[in-house]
Amino acid sequence: MIPRYSRPEMTAIWEPATKFRIWYEIEAHACDAMADLGVIPRENADAVWKAKDVEFNVARIDEIEAVTKHDVIAFLTHLAEHVGADQARFVHQGMTSSDVLDTCFNVQLTRAADILLADMDRVLAALKTRAFEHKDTVRIGRSHGIHAEPTTMGLTFARFYAEMERGRKRLVNAREEIATGAISGAVGTFANIDPRVEEHVCAQLGLNPETISTQVIPRDRHAMFFATLGVIASSMENIATEVRHMQRTEVLEAEEFFSAGQKGSSAMPHKRNPVLTENLTGLARLVRMSVTPALENVTLWHERDISHSSVERAIGPDTTVTLDFALNRLAGMIEKLVIYPENMLANMNKFRGLVMSQRVLLALTQAGVSREDSYRLVQRNAMKVWEQGKDFKTELLGDAEVTAVLTPAQIEEKFDLGYHTKHVDTIFKRVFGEA
Amino acid sequence: MIPRYSRPEMTAIWEPATKFRIWYEIEAHACDAMADLGVIPRENADAVWKAKDVEFNVARIDEIEAVTKHDVIAFLTHLAEHVGADQARFVHQGMTSSDVLDTCFNVQLTRAADILLADMDRVLAALKTRAFEHKDTVRIGRSHGIHAEPTTMGLTFARFYAEMERGRKRLVNAREEIATGAISGAVGTFANIDPRVEEHVCAQLGLNPETISTQVIPRDRHAMFFATLGVIASSMENIATEVRHMQRTEVLEAEEFFSAGQKGSSAMPHKRNPVLTENLTGLARLVRMSVTPALENVTLWHERDISHSSVERAIGPDTTVTLDFALNRLAGMIEKLVIYPENMLANMNKFRGLVMSQRVLLALTQAGVSREDSYRLVQRNAMKVWEQGKDFKTELLGDAEVTAVLTPAQIEEKFDLGYHTKHVDTIFKRVFGEA
Amino acid sequence: MIPRYSRPEMTAIWEPATKFRIWYEIEAHACDAMADLGVIPRENADAVWKAKDVEFNVARIDEIEAVTKHDVIAFLTHLAEHVGADQARFVHQGMTSSDVLDTCFNVQLTRAADILLADMDRVLAALKTRAFEHKDTVRIGRSHGIHAEPTTMGLTFARFYAEMERGRKRLVNAREEIATGAISGAVGTFANIDPRVEEHVCAQLGLNPETISTQVIPRDRHAMFFATLGVIASSMENIATEVRHMQRTEVLEAEEFFSAGQKGSSAMPHKRNPVLTENLTGLARLVRMSVTPALENVTLWHERDISHSSVERAIGPDTTVTLDFALNRLAGMIEKLVIYPENMLANMNKFRGLVMSQRVLLALTQAGVSREDSYRLVQRNAMKVWEQGKDFKTELLGDAEVTAVLTPAQIEEKFDLGYHTKHVDTIFKRVFGEA
Amino acid sequence: MIPRYSRPEMTAIWEPATKFRIWYEIEAHACDAMADLGVIPRENADAVWKAKDVEFNVARIDEIEAVTKHDVIAFLTHLAEHVGADQARFVHQGMTSSDVLDTCFNVQLTRAADILLADMDRVLAALKTRAFEHKDTVRIGRSHGIHAEPTTMGLTFARFYAEMERGRKRLVNAREEIATGAISGAVGTFANIDPRVEEHVCAQLGLNPETISTQVIPRDRHAMFFATLGVIASSMENIATEVRHMQRTEVLEAEEFFSAGQKGSSAMPHKRNPVLTENLTGLARLVRMSVTPALENVTLWHERDISHSSVERAIGPDTTVTLDFALNRLAGMIEKLVIYPENMLANMNKFRGLVMSQRVLLALTQAGVSREDSYRLVQRNAMKVWEQGKDFKTELLGDAEVTAVLTPAQIEEKFDLGYHTKHVDTIFKRVFGEA
Repeated sequence: MIPRYSRPEMTAIWEPATKFRIWYEIEAHACDAMADLGVIPRENADAVWKAKDVEFNVARIDEIEAVTKHDVIAFLTHLAEHVGADQARFVHQGMTSSDVLDTCFNVQLTRAADILLADMDRVLAALKTRAFEHKDTVRIGRSHGIHAEPTTMGLTFARFYAEMERGRKRLVNAREEIATGAISGAVGTFANIDPRVEEHVCAQLGLNPETISTQVIPRDRHAMFFATLGVIASSMENIATEVRHMQRTEVLEAEEFFSAGQKGSSAMPHKRNPVLTENLTGLARLVRMSVTPALENVTLWHERDISHSSVERAIGPDTTVTLDFALNRLAGMIEKLVIYPENMLANMNKFRGLVMSQRVLLALTQAGVSREDSYRLVQRNAMKVWEQGKDFKTELLGDAEVTAVLTPAQIEEKFDLGYHTKHVDTIFKRVFGEA
Repeated sequence: MIPRYSRPEMTAIWEPATKFRIWYEIEAHACDAMADLGVIPRENADAVWKAKDVEFNVARIDEIEAVTKHDVIAFLTHLAEHVGADQARFVHQGMTSSDVLDTCFNVQLTRAADILLADMDRVLAALKTRAFEHKDTVRIGRSHGIHAEPTTMGLTFARFYAEMERGRKRLVNAREEIATGAISGAVGTFANIDPRVEEHVCAQLGLNPETISTQVIPRDRHAMFFATLGVIASSMENIATEVRHMQRTEVLEAEEFFSAGQKGSSAMPHKRNPVLTENLTGLARLVRMSVTPALENVTLWHERDISHSSVERAIGPDTTVTLDFALNRLAGMIEKLVIYPENMLANMNKFRGLVMSQRVLLALTQAGVSREDSYRLVQRNAMKVWEQGKDFKTELLGDAEVTAVLTPAQIEEKFDLGYHTKHVDTIFKRVFGEA
Repeated sequence: MIPRYSRPEMTAIWEPATKFRIWYEIEAHACDAMADLGVIPRENADAVWKAKDVEFNVARIDEIEAVTKHDVIAFLTHLAEHVGADQARFVHQGMTSSDVLDTCFNVQLTRAADILLADMDRVLAALKTRAFEHKDTVRIGRSHGIHAEPTTMGLTFARFYAEMERGRKRLVNAREEIATGAISGAVGTFANIDPRVEEHVCAQLGLNPETISTQVIPRDRHAMFFATLGVIASSMENIATEVRHMQRTEVLEAEEFFSAGQKGSSAMPHKRNPVLTENLTGLARLVRMSVTPALENVTLWHERDISHSSVERAIGPDTTVTLDFALNRLAGMIEKLVIYPENMLANMNKFRGLVMSQRVLLALTQAGVSREDSYRLVQRNAMKVWEQGKDFKTELLGDAEVTAVLTPAQIEEKFDLGYHTKHVDTIFKRVFGEA
Repeated sequence: MIPRYSRPEMTAIWEPATKFRIWYEIEAHACDAMADLGVIPRENADAVWKAKDVEFNVARIDEIEAVTKHDVIAFLTHLAEHVGADQARFVHQGMTSSDVLDTCFNVQLTRAADILLADMDRVLAALKTRAFEHKDTVRIGRSHGIHAEPTTMGLTFARFYAEMERGRKRLVNAREEIATGAISGAVGTFANIDPRVEEHVCAQLGLNPETISTQVIPRDRHAMFFATLGVIASSMENIATEVRHMQRTEVLEAEEFFSAGQKGSSAMPHKRNPVLTENLTGLARLVRMSVTPALENVTLWHERDISHSSVERAIGPDTTVTLDFALNRLAGMIEKLVIYPENMLANMNKFRGLVMSQRVLLALTQAGVSREDSYRLVQRNAMKVWEQGKDFKTELLGDAEVTAVLTPAQIEEKFDLGYHTKHVDTIFKRVFGEA
């Protein structure tokens, strides 16, 4: 977790104080359930809630842990300092540390997912606004980095919207998968604790009881969670790469917003770097790098080993914090992205009319000219554009063999940009449900 | 794709003949739709179906491709050889190669997913059978590879069942995500082809029209698909590792089935190696290795570049074929796994009764003994078991300080295995809906 | 291994016939050594060499393996069919299958490395030739995709040369690491075979005896090998990406060679796609994807488990074959790359003279103008270039406040390209040892 | 970077204060070189050294950066506050920020490598000590987790030593690769700075001048560095996994040291968990996860983009800090590992004498019995051991068909453990140069 790539809302989830607060709630709710079941006295359960508004002293807990070498025991000891040793004596009864740790981790991941979903909503809103704003802003479509046929900037935003919306749906699934808790005891048999305690605690925390746990909640859930974040990060990189390309000096179809005060902006007006999107490209790699260790974490020995733990201590906070920061940076970048429609037109016309050569070829074929002849006709006019900078349409209109089969109006029509944008509304309706 | 790790049903999906067959169907359905729309003559569309029962000549297509250097053109040329050049002249009109290639790839992945789902059903069935068979077969639960508390072999199978069922659900989602087709032309604008052609073709092939394509179907869908296979592979490794541990000479709680004829079985009866599960461990790595390149494939330049293509030529077949083979090997291994309940009991009693020390500790505390004293009492008896091989229960029954607070019956009760299995039915109901 | 991305020289290494040939040599040399040590009769060792020129029948061996379920035994059985069962009876004595398999695998990897080293030599030669050819071809250097300061095309080739040369050196190290053999018996103790047999076999095969083996050669060696190939693949992608950028329609500073016969070349002269380098980008991902499983293979249980085997069956051939193909494609691409120096100049002057703004700023500062004033002076002239398309030098020469501190000659000098290329020879000498 | 998995010596390298100190040295040495070359006045160069003993105020630099949005400018501004604005005015002349940033990063990685090399020395020393201590401690070798033939604990330590020594050698190479600096200006042409400045700065900092840089030092060097750490981490996991297996309740051939004070040690003497080695397993995953992003960082656009930067801000510190911590934990674990030779013998004899069945089989064959008959003889005696718990040697001595070809002494000899350890000295000499 790098401070400059962090937002406080997400880092707060991973602070020790938050963790201890969640631990507290798990223990207190468990006591409630045990009291309801008659397993422990009601007054002891009630007593635990005396600490409801306590801010646990992280330094104190660390101090105790330095002696006990066990974080949960340290916390429980500290809790007893607030509740009273005697009244606290049923806290954690029948439970194992992992019941607390794993349930807490899933609460944290679930909360992190909620923030990420809100982040994605911001990204989606930005993409939608920009898509409609530039629905009809024509630019050249490119395959292999080479001019192909016209498209619109709105379609570019729209496809990123559709991709991010898929990502959002995947994250909803991943969030649901990770929203489980387990209070099942040493090896998951509920030998020392009634399954209804688990049900109660989970209900209070907005979780589902884990279908079947061992000592731990199964890690395939977490693998899926981090894999999902990895896919979202890749989609983010996809958008970032598009912008980086658009901002290239030779392309200059868009620029990241450059605030007036930013040093160097106007002494070197050509030197406005797409640093946000380059940064997003790197952050995407950081998010993705958690996928492999999360997959390796799935295999645990028998009812659990602790190999997953150190991995999660790192990737839990780092990955969610980084993606949260990145999605917000992405949203802001999209919201403010400066678009240059005139440069889009200029780029499209770099080789005057040549991007229409495919349409002309098709028109000739459809007019009955053989493929070979159509090809020859297009070729000889195209080469004049390419080599001598002539205008493609003008050349075609002056080529007798072409005008023998295509009228001037038909030729003109092949250069009509409306031909390429006629289905934009159809596509927008598919993507946004409106056009 | 390694022959020894392949099953013909899956490899068939990836054979050139299958690919050409799918290409054919895409083209033929597209012609139908274009004829319905009045874009091309109905008779030309009908003519394409003349090739309906043709087995395309892969060698001939390769021969043409060697000249044209373009696979789709080679196929279309060959198709024209069957349909007649004149009648075939509207085939592929307004389409781009990627319309065929990407739609075909998704058909293949969808079919592959269907096979994998059936594979998982076989794994699930095997796990369920074995779970019920060994629902009450007690074995020691282990955390960190160290004896913890008793559990049952049925619960082990049940948790693998629950994990695989989650994997199946994820695969259903991934299949749905990948089941899209695109017939949208050069840069996805439908400039040269009506969107209704795409709708028709997709409907015929059991696909959804891609919400918005560029020249290609967006690769986040594929990334999610391969990530999902990676998670399933990890779950498979989780099962395999459990069996490998069970088969260790010192543990010997289970053995992969060893056919009578297998060389070496009885001259070295101790030397039956868990080669299937070790193999599955390696195959899991092979499946997982496709995740990172699939994530890297998401970012394409502008409306497409072709960097994803070579990756998919490899991981498309290799990953699905490997996982298909592995899941079947896994199912067979589970179906035939030889379980040794008596060894499970013997292992549990390796340190006579010591696994119950935690329960005794709890009982003493609950009986009012202070934590420190309870600990001391358990400790002094436990050490006699550990160091001198005594029986824990016997020692406790003979310890006056213990019997002062716990009756013999209470002590006996702490060693009752039923205590640990009392919620097995509850868990089975959660997992299987029955117990 | 995908046929279209394969070269026969490399695939030959991985054919069954090659493998059996290597197995044969290992066994025959081992017999020689055992005979020399008096462990087996000399005549039996000599008899094995009777099969020296035999082409082993792969189908026959497969047939036997179908019965024995063991590849090495199947081979030995087949060998006995050539040598005579009685004479062959000491073959493989005291050895374990892994002695043969692992030593063979390392022979294969070593041979693969030799081919890859030759491939890299071809790449290096091409880069050097092109570097000297374009040593003084000025082009704009770009950071963040934005024009920065001038550099030369020769320096671009030179840096790729230096990077590939580092890769070559790494591969020499990796080759040396992997060039080991082991003939140490069941668990590596030489209990059943004299260490001198290993020494002899390794010497004959050009390998070093493995310092200490268990049943297998330790897999950290292989991990390092595949990691090294992964780094080389990344360097290859680095070159490929540069070319893809250069070939963009708006940049057009270079194009992959496009043979006259290639379809579509001149009807759409703008539509020459950098398909080779895009393909190389994808192939780089395929090579890299072996790194993670190779790292996961390092951990084996005790003296060995067989989880690494299936992984290696795939990545051994696939990775070396893919990289071999890719490096040759890379070399050919570089050799024939069409460079457009005039476009390089045109791009550099897109914003007339603006790339020199930094130098002017520095000159003003060095002439004693304060940073703030220098900045203001540069800025007001730069904006005229940026917004009105003026020529930067002309504007500066007409700015009285500028000419008050810089003479026209001094201003002119700031636009001298020689300023930027004056150390090219120095750098070339560092890279190539000559300039 | 997780505090609990960090050592101060390594984290110190990555603290802002250290970074600024290195930046300072780069700038000061560069001024010296420029003064020597007559480019700037000597007194200005000398003036910079006035700050030699200054502890730079990190908070103040952050404060400036908040305004300038540029870390290097913020530092230079702060430096000028110490040196005097006028005297500092030649600092950084002709340099680009990356000259400072990249050279600093490589200084940090080089220092990190030095610490890691010392860590590995500690691991190697521990392994060597334990290897000699247990050179002759016989234990069963296992393939596939199944008993194979005897080996010694010393050989186990020795092979880890050899593996770690290879890792150390690789790290020496990687350190050498990363020990470069670049002071080459905006796009690496030395247009604004003499190459001799770079030479001087590098010499002072113990670096080699980068052969050819662009704006940045090429990232293949860093990829190789992190890949090397990844391989070392895998070797570490290999050792950790061996210990985890040895500590299993059923195996119990070794235990991590368990300090007397550690809670729970004796109330549950069977419950000493191999938490250190499980933790090392997880930490290995964390180290390895940097390999893929480091490989992805190699490709930068043209003379540089900044996508690598955020990745390195994370993996630079995180990976080196984690591996440093892990190697020290590994060393401590090895140093104190408690070995149980008697349990090793007990395990080996679990199936009384059966591990020698292979030797007996060989002896029978060598005595002239056919393979089939030998097999049958071994089998019928082996099964009595396996099924009835008989002693293998006793059974053989009582089998007339066996004693017909092997004398009792010959049979006895087959059970001599010395047979298996006779080449331990040979192997030790290979590994350690002594035995």
